[in-house]
Amino acid sequence: MAKKGKVYLVPTVISEGTNALLPPQTIEIIHSLSYFIVERARTARRFIKTTNPPYSIDSLEIIEIDNNDPSYLEIGLKWLQNSHSVGIMSESGMPGIADPGEAFIKLAHKHNYEVHPLVGPSSIFMSLAASGLNGQNFAFIGYLPIKEQELKQRLKHLESAVFKHAQTQIFIETPYRNDRMLDYLIKHLNQNISLCVARDISGESEMIICKRISEWKKTKIQIGKIPTIFLLGQ
Amino acid sequence: MAKKGKVYLVPTVISEGTNALLPPQTIEIIHSLSYFIVERARTARRFIKTTNPPYSIDSLEIIEIDNNDPSYLEIGLKWLQNSHSVGIMSESGMPGIADPGEAFIKLAHKHNYEVHPLVGPSSIFMSLAASGLNGQNFAFIGYLPIKEQELKQRLKHLESAVFKHAQTQIFIETPYRNDRMLDYLIKHLNQNISLCVARDISGESEMIICKRISEWKKTKIQIGKIPTIFLLGQ
Repeated sequence: MAKKGKVYLVPTVISEGTNALLPPQTIEIIHSLSYFIVERARTARRFIKTTNPPYSIDSLEIIEIDNNDPSYLEIGLKWLQNSHSVGIMSESGMPGIADPGEAFIKLAHKHNYEVHPLVGPSSIFMSLAASGLNGQNFAFIGYLPIKEQELKQRLKHLESAVFKHAQTQIFIETPYRNDRMLDYLIKHLNQNISLCVARDISGESEMIICKRISEWKKTKIQIGKIPTIFLLGQ
Repeated sequence: MAKKGKVYLVPTVISEGTNALLPPQTIEIIHSLSYFIVERARTARRFIKTTNPPYSIDSLEIIEIDNNDPSYLEIGLKWLQNSHSVGIMSESGMPGIADPGEAFIKLAHKHNYEVHPLVGPSSIFMSLAASGLNGQNFAFIGYLPIKEQELKQRLKHLESAVFKHAQTQIFIETPYRNDRMLDYLIKHLNQNISLCVARDISGESEMIICKRISEWKKTKIQIGKIPTIFLLGQ
């Protein structure tokens, strides 16, 4: 019987030049794979190259995730059926978490292929741990609405989840809107809520600041256009 | 001016004998630290020993987290004030996420000490990625109620969050109750909800099975008394 293909979730670094954040096992498995489904082929190749693989990058089979054209799913499934293991990679962090990859993982489960997550950096989890906010009950909700009326309503909802259920609320923002979001949060949130701003987790410009809104009102900081996680909690 | 102490969140392996899951940077920082606040001193010492530190384990200053006696917080703060960096470690995975550590992290922020999360395995995060369920919107809610009436009500609530908001719901169970919980979920959840069972993530008995309740009804599996994450999604 042919060896069955497996699916590996390959995390990538979230800040450039930080390969020391990848465990030996993750590197070893990357080097054992020849078939990849990725968010963008060019950066995937560049990333794999930085891990010093024992093969030529040109020998790899790489296809891109395309939500408008699901034919990549069939190609990936064919690879598994031909007993090739497949790595899934997004542009940064863990595929399938605030990043593409889910559809193929779902398909793999449907066809009973083994799915193995590998260890690597995740800005959501690292910022949650570093926040000191409740890590026994938390929600990641992606992006907040842009329109002010909807945003205001959503923030009321998040405040209520924080105070009623002690549930930490985690969200992100398009980097060029980070500072506008921070100003808005400081202006409109409850004085007693804790806001944590976690910028460039694991990178050179990492900055993790957590305090109550009443304290934020006394400080002025600039985040800049750098990937940032926002967290609200008690 | 004395060098300021920093706080490092040190993840540990979640399954024994899997040190290849720790990145070189995490090991390097463990080896640079002499002061630790930990969930249990004995296992912390044993874990640090497996990383081959360049010092004698006996030379380390280690105090335990004690929710009934917060004096450990003062000792840790004194270490920081004396310019020593402090590592926080729980029994498995990331401190502060479904694990102790929050209180000291919060205190460190209050006194403006830098807090740096390190990379390592997290069973919640890895099982979410491997589930193929929605990773753009998810909640971790800890343990479900034990009493049947409350459990039933809670499951209704979780189903509604899954169907209305497409929010993946993640929870855990005391290992000896895993199989009872699985039976209960298969029996009482909506036929169309997807249930993912992720056992012993990263370990020898890793098993990740994800399918709809209607499919679960056709299979019989035994989880056993092994740490497991349960996930519900669309």
